[in-house]
Amino acid sequence: MSAAPELERLIDLMAKLPGLGPRSARRAVLQLVKRRERLLVPLAGAIAEVADKVRNCTLCGNVATAERCQICTDPTRANGTICVVEDVADLWALERAGVFRGRYHVLGGVLSALDGTTPEMLGIPALSGRIGTENVAEVILALSATVDGQTTAHVIHEYLTDHDCKVTVLAKGVPVGGELDYLDDGTLVAALAQRVPI
Amino acid sequence: MSAAPELERLIDLMAKLPGLGPRSARRAVLQLVKRRERLLVPLAGAIAEVADKVRNCTLCGNVATAERCQICTDPTRANGTICVVEDVADLWALERAGVFRGRYHVLGGVLSALDGTTPEMLGIPALSGRIGTENVAEVILALSATVDGQTTAHVIHEYLTDHDCKVTVLAKGVPVGGELDYLDDGTLVAALAQRVPI
Repeated sequence: MSAAPELERLIDLMAKLPGLGPRSARRAVLQLVKRRERLLVPLAGAIAEVADKVRNCTLCGNVATAERCQICTDPTRANGTICVVEDVADLWALERAGVFRGRYHVLGGVLSALDGTTPEMLGIPALSGRIGTENVAEVILALSATVDGQTTAHVIHEYLTDHDCKVTVLAKGVPVGGELDYLDDGTLVAALAQRVPI
Repeated sequence: MSAAPELERLIDLMAKLPGLGPRSARRAVLQLVKRRERLLVPLAGAIAEVADKVRNCTLCGNVATAERCQICTDPTRANGTICVVEDVADLWALERAGVFRGRYHVLGGVLSALDGTTPEMLGIPALSGRIGTENVAEVILALSATVDGQTTAHVIHEYLTDHDCKVTVLAKGVPVGGELDYLDDGTLVAALAQRVPI
């Protein structure tokens, strides 16, 4: 290859991003070099700023630019309800929906025997601690409806039995806009079992 | 949105890269924040280095870290043949193939009446100048077989008529591994017209 080693290094790193492979990383880097002033220089600045400033919120695990994240320090949000999510991406998805106005707790993963993930690694004891200090009345487990996600929900529920707080999970059922004949059996069984009055 | 403004800015910039949209840029940035030491910090360094060092070769237009690129300064490469390509990506593709050992001239685009691209913007007069100073015997026009690419090839050919050098274009025909019944008529006509003895 005739590309400079600096470019090769950038291409290798870009190729590690989700959604980019070696070929598209190459295209992206070429585009960066081509649009130097409008893309490369601002991106270099933006990424340096993120590397410099962004850390994890010490309370909830969300991304933050200070010790505590914007949600933990927002006085307009309700205390007393904690929504437990697997990942910051899930937190963002819930925020986009804009219905939840309480606090979050980001696990950073799910329990997995294969990967050797322990409750301590996911901050589950820390969550248990927050319930006392923050006077939490309800913990909503907004975890994926996968085996690992449901196992994690079960373990968190066991951790929280000593506390006098309600533990809920997201409803399972037909996705909005979903057609019945495309749904799997598991979803249909859950939707039927959890049916509500119209 | 609850993401910090630094993250939003990075997501907006990443979304401008080819192959990434707003959603995948969001995922990529989250991945960066998650893998801080192994991905975010090295990427910040690599991109700053590229922004700082990489420029265009003043002779051929290839990306370079000095006044002249690696190919223009390579003494093992043959002078006397210039391969004209539209883009650095095309130069890299030819280098990967590894058969061309001469010099290049990167146009940085093709002539386009719609975009108002002129021969001067593509460095075609500079190419004409190189033919005299570098004692060039052959100019290979390795341009795309599109309308704009072929128009550009035609205009370059006219610019070079005063010079005593051969101007060639890439052969048109069946791609290696291609099946006849999937080929378009234009390719079949070209392949038949330019047939060679077996």
